[in-house]
Amino acid sequence: MLTCRIHAKEDLRIEPAAQPEVGPGEVLIRLGAGGICGSDLHYYFDGRNGSFVVREPLIPGHEASGIVAKIGEGVTRVKPGDKIAVSPSQACAHCDYCREGREHLCRNMRFLGSASLYPHVQGMFAEYFVLGERQCYPVCGEVSLGELAFAEPLAVGLHAVARAGALLGRSVLVMGAGTIGCLTVIAARLAGATCVTAADVLDRPLATARAVGATHTLRADKEADALPSSRFDIAFEASGSFAALKGCLSAVKRGGTIVQVGTLPHEPLPFLVNEILVKELDFKGAFRWGIEFDWAVEYIASRRIDVRPLLSGQFPLAEAAKAFELARDKTRSTKVQLIPA
Amino acid sequence: MLTCRIHAKEDLRIEPAAQPEVGPGEVLIRLGAGGICGSDLHYYFDGRNGSFVVREPLIPGHEASGIVAKIGEGVTRVKPGDKIAVSPSQACAHCDYCREGREHLCRNMRFLGSASLYPHVQGMFAEYFVLGERQCYPVCGEVSLGELAFAEPLAVGLHAVARAGALLGRSVLVMGAGTIGCLTVIAARLAGATCVTAADVLDRPLATARAVGATHTLRADKEADALPSSRFDIAFEASGSFAALKGCLSAVKRGGTIVQVGTLPHEPLPFLVNEILVKELDFKGAFRWGIEFDWAVEYIASRRIDVRPLLSGQFPLAEAAKAFELARDKTRSTKVQLIPA
Amino acid sequence: MLTCRIHAKEDLRIEPAAQPEVGPGEVLIRLGAGGICGSDLHYYFDGRNGSFVVREPLIPGHEASGIVAKIGEGVTRVKPGDKIAVSPSQACAHCDYCREGREHLCRNMRFLGSASLYPHVQGMFAEYFVLGERQCYPVCGEVSLGELAFAEPLAVGLHAVARAGALLGRSVLVMGAGTIGCLTVIAARLAGATCVTAADVLDRPLATARAVGATHTLRADKEADALPSSRFDIAFEASGSFAALKGCLSAVKRGGTIVQVGTLPHEPLPFLVNEILVKELDFKGAFRWGIEFDWAVEYIASRRIDVRPLLSGQFPLAEAAKAFELARDKTRSTKVQLIPA
Amino acid sequence: MLTCRIHAKEDLRIEPAAQPEVGPGEVLIRLGAGGICGSDLHYYFDGRNGSFVVREPLIPGHEASGIVAKIGEGVTRVKPGDKIAVSPSQACAHCDYCREGREHLCRNMRFLGSASLYPHVQGMFAEYFVLGERQCYPVCGEVSLGELAFAEPLAVGLHAVARAGALLGRSVLVMGAGTIGCLTVIAARLAGATCVTAADVLDRPLATARAVGATHTLRADKEADALPSSRFDIAFEASGSFAALKGCLSAVKRGGTIVQVGTLPHEPLPFLVNEILVKELDFKGAFRWGIEFDWAVEYIASRRIDVRPLLSGQFPLAEAAKAFELARDKTRSTKVQLIPA
Repeated sequence: MLTCRIHAKEDLRIEPAAQPEVGPGEVLIRLGAGGICGSDLHYYFDGRNGSFVVREPLIPGHEASGIVAKIGEGVTRVKPGDKIAVSPSQACAHCDYCREGREHLCRNMRFLGSASLYPHVQGMFAEYFVLGERQCYPVCGEVSLGELAFAEPLAVGLHAVARAGALLGRSVLVMGAGTIGCLTVIAARLAGATCVTAADVLDRPLATARAVGATHTLRADKEADALPSSRFDIAFEASGSFAALKGCLSAVKRGGTIVQVGTLPHEPLPFLVNEILVKELDFKGAFRWGIEFDWAVEYIASRRIDVRPLLSGQFPLAEAAKAFELARDKTRSTKVQLIPA
Repeated sequence: MLTCRIHAKEDLRIEPAAQPEVGPGEVLIRLGAGGICGSDLHYYFDGRNGSFVVREPLIPGHEASGIVAKIGEGVTRVKPGDKIAVSPSQACAHCDYCREGREHLCRNMRFLGSASLYPHVQGMFAEYFVLGERQCYPVCGEVSLGELAFAEPLAVGLHAVARAGALLGRSVLVMGAGTIGCLTVIAARLAGATCVTAADVLDRPLATARAVGATHTLRADKEADALPSSRFDIAFEASGSFAALKGCLSAVKRGGTIVQVGTLPHEPLPFLVNEILVKELDFKGAFRWGIEFDWAVEYIASRRIDVRPLLSGQFPLAEAAKAFELARDKTRSTKVQLIPA
Repeated sequence: MLTCRIHAKEDLRIEPAAQPEVGPGEVLIRLGAGGICGSDLHYYFDGRNGSFVVREPLIPGHEASGIVAKIGEGVTRVKPGDKIAVSPSQACAHCDYCREGREHLCRNMRFLGSASLYPHVQGMFAEYFVLGERQCYPVCGEVSLGELAFAEPLAVGLHAVARAGALLGRSVLVMGAGTIGCLTVIAARLAGATCVTAADVLDRPLATARAVGATHTLRADKEADALPSSRFDIAFEASGSFAALKGCLSAVKRGGTIVQVGTLPHEPLPFLVNEILVKELDFKGAFRWGIEFDWAVEYIASRRIDVRPLLSGQFPLAEAAKAFELARDKTRSTKVQLIPA
Repeated sequence: MLTCRIHAKEDLRIEPAAQPEVGPGEVLIRLGAGGICGSDLHYYFDGRNGSFVVREPLIPGHEASGIVAKIGEGVTRVKPGDKIAVSPSQACAHCDYCREGREHLCRNMRFLGSASLYPHVQGMFAEYFVLGERQCYPVCGEVSLGELAFAEPLAVGLHAVARAGALLGRSVLVMGAGTIGCLTVIAARLAGATCVTAADVLDRPLATARAVGATHTLRADKEADALPSSRFDIAFEASGSFAALKGCLSAVKRGGTIVQVGTLPHEPLPFLVNEILVKELDFKGAFRWGIEFDWAVEYIASRRIDVRPLLSGQFPLAEAAKAFELARDKTRSTKVQLIPA
């Protein structure tokens, strides 16, 4: 079988590997589709993702769907042939965070396709991989493997929206209309926001945001003056740009909420902190997701949420480098996925 | 009657004035005690409080108690001779914020003793003043006028704690042990926090914090290394020091909450914003108070909360300048109050 | 001008009246459309609504839209010719409930078209009526007067949903598919519930529920066994039938929520109270609405919510009795409205 | 070693047993103290607890402390000689409830000393017993084993209070002043309620309630008329009496909350259900506890909460029958505990 491994910065190799064995409670999965995420791009183009440095060959990939190839002893949740969404999260289930319903903050988290631990926890850009049965979510119906691979990033958008509290009757701004921004637009609409304005510095993402339900769009670079002051109840910063965060700080109402879901540079930034007090804001981080993964699978499987406008292309594993190139060009793509062959 | 008026920076005058008339629904109040707050100090020593500049003579004072001297037509809430706590807040009751239970964010707020509007809304450092009956809270029992004048700053502490959510089972850090810091310590203890650590850069405030219930204290300047990392569920920044806020960012747990209640410089500050995301924090501003004023009156009147350890001295109006000098010296005072004579 | 007055049980008269005068801050409104609600039916067919007995001629009607005919001195919110939704709620804005953002529980509430006070607070089934400007919500665009008259019952549905907490990822049951049931279906869908099952004892309401977004429907009488046990996260009782409430108690999951929005007989009923403990349920009443009225106007005005499938007919005031007859026949109607002529 | 086993109604035997073996991850515990709870009384005096019937000899007891006697392979949380509080709860950690932070609703719960499953899950009224290390909470300091055995019922009180939401500024009624009622009084005071009224039908419990912090007490039988109507923000029903629940329904304010923590008869009761709607109440069940057990251990270990006024006596296991007799006589006891010898 083939695997896609990042050995170092811009050193991505398609390498053969032995198909892994299935132990008790485990499931062998054949990759359906695997979405390329911003952190995968960082591992490939920078050899690191923030402070997490590639120190040994890393199989990236944490947004995936698949088909069950084989099940280990005692597995009851899935059977061979099942179409599944796959959760990349392995929380310990016993620490204080897990017990309080915040498994994404687990003290002992293992998250697939990440260099945060050493040895690295390998990801899913491989023809086959083995996971515990609890990470497998079987799905019926006609939904495609490509759509199911959106469960993870949709869970990010749903978690960001859940962090904001109830959205009924609320006006929303989403800064950044990439995959996470668009999925946040979708989640905010789903939660009943009265209107959702998306802002970006490129036209293509804004067109996509409109296609998935944004009621208004805005070129944040050209129409900065058009961004109204103190108008939105809730702003989501989904671009990772500090300028965008400053825009949120200005655009949100007194008593409003800002949710940070895009990763900023991890260094001190000149932030007008006192506005948090003066405007009595809630400024909240949204880190990954917990039970929202389960919701995401259900919304996609029932097509209550249609993620298809976000899929810009699928490439076989063997063409991973080409796929990564397309994925980082936001004038040409939203989400790019890898498929086995 | 005498009034205390700030004409400009360091120009505070004790001036005679005609006793004001009482209209329908209004109450004439003889000052009981009036606490000097940080904003009063700014008006006096700087001639401004942030962007609010003294543009005409301003009577400061928004923390007061009094005795009802006379009531206007139709007043039913109080009668002459009543001992009262006085609310300095005049919200409009009809804007969207008022209707949603956040009167402190009222779009048409008039707040006593502030230069935020022009003409300024005059405050209560005067022998007599007139207010609407809804601002008067009659109180029975032996509680003193000096204690009742703490209702306003206690409401600030209660609001900060209310913003943090339920404190049962939670560990708390309070940065800054001045009046607001100590009242936040009291409110956090009242709300059931398992332990409350107070930090300051002076010994006197820390002794006061211990006297009002802090379970641990810390010299933030000398024992910076002693401030544990990622240990507290909730941190209150009540010092107005940016270094203290950075301490909170480090000391609070993943998934924790920081409440900003002390006013920082209103300019961009080098803040490690991305920690909000990475630690999935809630960073919340706490601005003044709403219904918490009513609670504060009740807790003080029943002496469920004892504010007496915070009172460092009372001066007649005629000695206001001397009182302001003592009030700004944190090595010698916590709260200093003015009394009529 | 004509008014519709209930003098006693089944004694409804169309009577001429002098057009009312407009005072300062007031607005003269020409009726656009006025929906007949269950309480209006009770006043007409029973001469009372629960414990509120018709003791003098009562103009019913609290769901209305209109056109501004004339404005009093100082009115700025509307101008003659404006199309408006009308709020029937006059809260005092100053009691503890109003200050805490729960104006619908106001201690001094005056609610239009109700016999709860004496003299009765007259309603809006009249050619013209006068109200304070704050009760007038001007609306632009092509939305019809008939649609705008749904703002009040939609606010009931939105409030019920707001009482249930966030619905993202949650499964919902709505018992009763009359106007309030269907508007609760709409509100639950709007708030992002994964699926919404509507149950009723008639086919027509279920067809309407499907038309407005119910994902599943159920004949509660015939398919009682089909009502799954412990399956729904949240159940709304919108039928006023005690049998339906018992169905909710069984159908909702452990840890789930029941919201009572339909009025039950006001007498002791044989309720399995201990299930509240054993299943650790939240059983919540939803009484009228507060700020949700503002949301309702916005959702209807933007046609984000389309209420048109719920409108079964409009009758001129002169044919009010006929309209009331149709309104109580749930095999033939959902909402019936009165129009001026 | 000795065990206390209930074979059937009023058939309690003190029987010898082999000391259990310790497996990997397990801990052998010597009983410190074990409190007799209402459900233990039901098993003994009725042979059943509601629908859970004693079908084989059952060792009751789920409120216990102990000393670690021996540890199995891999245990790191405790060591021999440690003084521990013991959690009787074995949640699965993986079902939807566990993942959402509600482990007490776990679909696969095993709870010690209960006949809810068959074979029964044996309890802790035995000289020695073996549990997983996660159920052991080591504690330092001078707190006694008797006090530590209150961690479980205190967790019940804390959970009830947590279910009620923030108590700052709120007035509280607690119906029933037995162990759970008194611990709810303690928890409500801890959470900052302005005042806590306790009601009971006996004088002894009321004296105990006052000793642990109730600000007012009331003989519910004699002073029924004294129970004010619509006065309390929050009422806790902790007596298991339906009359008391009806008292709560009347005594709580519009918009208020009732928390049911005492077990009622499991049959339909004539309840004025419509008050839930008309008063817009929140009526919530409180079933056991989750993370609150951890809090309870901390509050007791630090003596922030002093449970000693609730302990009415300790008896050796051999005198269990005598202890059960005392425990059910509320004119003579609050909490009665068993000790090894």
